[in-house]
Amino acid sequence: MSDPLRVVLDPRHPRGVAESFRAIDGIDLIEAEDPDGVAAAVRDAAVLVGWKWEDRFLADGLRWIQSISAGVEQFPLDELARRGVALTSARGVHGPQIAEHTFALLLAMTRNVAISTRDATERIWRPRMAEEIAGRTMAIVGLGSIGEEVAGRAVAWDMRVIGIKANPDGYDGVAERVSGPGALLDVCREADVVVSVLPDHPDTRGLFDDEAFAAIGAGWFVNVGRGSAVDEDALVRALDDGELRGAGLDVFEVEPLPDDSPLWSHPRVVVTPHMGGLSPAYGPRLARIFEQNLAAFRGEGAWRNRIV
Amino acid sequence: MSDPLRVVLDPRHPRGVAESFRAIDGIDLIEAEDPDGVAAAVRDAAVLVGWKWEDRFLADGLRWIQSISAGVEQFPLDELARRGVALTSARGVHGPQIAEHTFALLLAMTRNVAISTRDATERIWRPRMAEEIAGRTMAIVGLGSIGEEVAGRAVAWDMRVIGIKANPDGYDGVAERVSGPGALLDVCREADVVVSVLPDHPDTRGLFDDEAFAAIGAGWFVNVGRGSAVDEDALVRALDDGELRGAGLDVFEVEPLPDDSPLWSHPRVVVTPHMGGLSPAYGPRLARIFEQNLAAFRGEGAWRNRIV
Repeated sequence: MSDPLRVVLDPRHPRGVAESFRAIDGIDLIEAEDPDGVAAAVRDAAVLVGWKWEDRFLADGLRWIQSISAGVEQFPLDELARRGVALTSARGVHGPQIAEHTFALLLAMTRNVAISTRDATERIWRPRMAEEIAGRTMAIVGLGSIGEEVAGRAVAWDMRVIGIKANPDGYDGVAERVSGPGALLDVCREADVVVSVLPDHPDTRGLFDDEAFAAIGAGWFVNVGRGSAVDEDALVRALDDGELRGAGLDVFEVEPLPDDSPLWSHPRVVVTPHMGGLSPAYGPRLARIFEQNLAAFRGEGAWRNRIV
Repeated sequence: MSDPLRVVLDPRHPRGVAESFRAIDGIDLIEAEDPDGVAAAVRDAAVLVGWKWEDRFLADGLRWIQSISAGVEQFPLDELARRGVALTSARGVHGPQIAEHTFALLLAMTRNVAISTRDATERIWRPRMAEEIAGRTMAIVGLGSIGEEVAGRAVAWDMRVIGIKANPDGYDGVAERVSGPGALLDVCREADVVVSVLPDHPDTRGLFDDEAFAAIGAGWFVNVGRGSAVDEDALVRALDDGELRGAGLDVFEVEPLPDDSPLWSHPRVVVTPHMGGLSPAYGPRLARIFEQNLAAFRGEGAWRNRIV
């Protein structure tokens, strides 16, 4: 049995991560209290479990970074590659809960649960015709690992799924058809429900604008990606002057959502405070990825989610 | 081609039913304006599409009643049998929308959409840890055709499903295990989510009492059946003094829910005003059942949902 491997854990992690890592055998977990603590601890450790990046974390002895986040754009990929430092992502830890959150938002609109909850605050009993999602077409914009979890649940409930992804070639998921970004408007026209799972990226900022919402027409829009993909003024116009039936939003242009945003009180908008990724299963799932990569680090298996 | 068959439609039907029946070929649809109109029209018609029953509707020439409801306990079954009048139910028209409504209520609790919607009325941004339903056990109490639609969606989303039904012998649905009513407490203990789909019946009134909620423990309860199955005082005690995590309720002991009910404002209760069965697909689905039975009535196929 080798000596316990020193593993530094950045304190900026979702609730439950530390507990899950404390239960991993064969590591000496160093729980830094702040970024200074991370910088100090990595001088004497080969492994960092981290999220936000600072260059001072790149100590000479560092050999592997397990990212706490699915996205890894914050890390210096080229520099890590040059130094032979492995980087693995947390891809897969968010999918199930964000997929369930997507349907929580969608069904809160189609079954009028959100508006009934508002009625209940005033003790108003007012049944409203509600809709079915079975048989309808869902378009998932940004069909990566999270989007695929959404797609799987939609198909399992008899929805038809189409999608948009940056590189549709070689797609092998459950969606019936996946197109490149140029097909956005056509895909929105075809869909009854459009779900954005887009990360923040210069290419997708404000992508959902007047034209996109006009293409969605009398459908529902759900955003569980990043708020920057949506022009919120255009969204409100689509709800008030256009045909959009509702918007379920977990993310916003500015967070927390400003007090003066009309989205707070719009009767056909459902707002949740950027919590789609929250789940008690986050820590355990990340720990399982880490454990697989720990074996790989020791030469005993294949890496998972290896980026560098 | 035979002459159009005179079919009387009772006016007490969900929105969309009349439109769907007007589109059926080969019938002369008589849309009665009130119960008197039904009683008058059936004197010269062989077929009634009805819901509430009055003995004066049983004209001598009546040969077939298509019920608008899934339950048919309101009809005089023995008398219809004696006279050779066929009775077919609407079994199957409610399942999809009630199943989607079940998950709308459940996910509004597990993903904290309902409480976030209440926060939004005060412009409060407060992310709360949310849960996942995948991997959990759902118990469906009253596993008939509607419960089976719930079960199918749960299994498709990686839940384990167990159930209770009056006569579990010969069950061939997707639930892992189905027991008789005597196993209610054991099944509640085993489940994370308990869904009642029970109709109103003397045997099940007040079935969910202190003991049943204690058995559910730290789980979620959803009622999309009838309110009479729940002792609401016991439910409130389970929420306030017990472990129950939440209740999603579409039906109540008294409807509309009285102004002084604590369920209106309980932070872990989601209230919808008895609308689980509402769907624009109700009429089209009922019309499809009717069309199949119309063929059977003319000797051209098998009956569907024939009770008498």
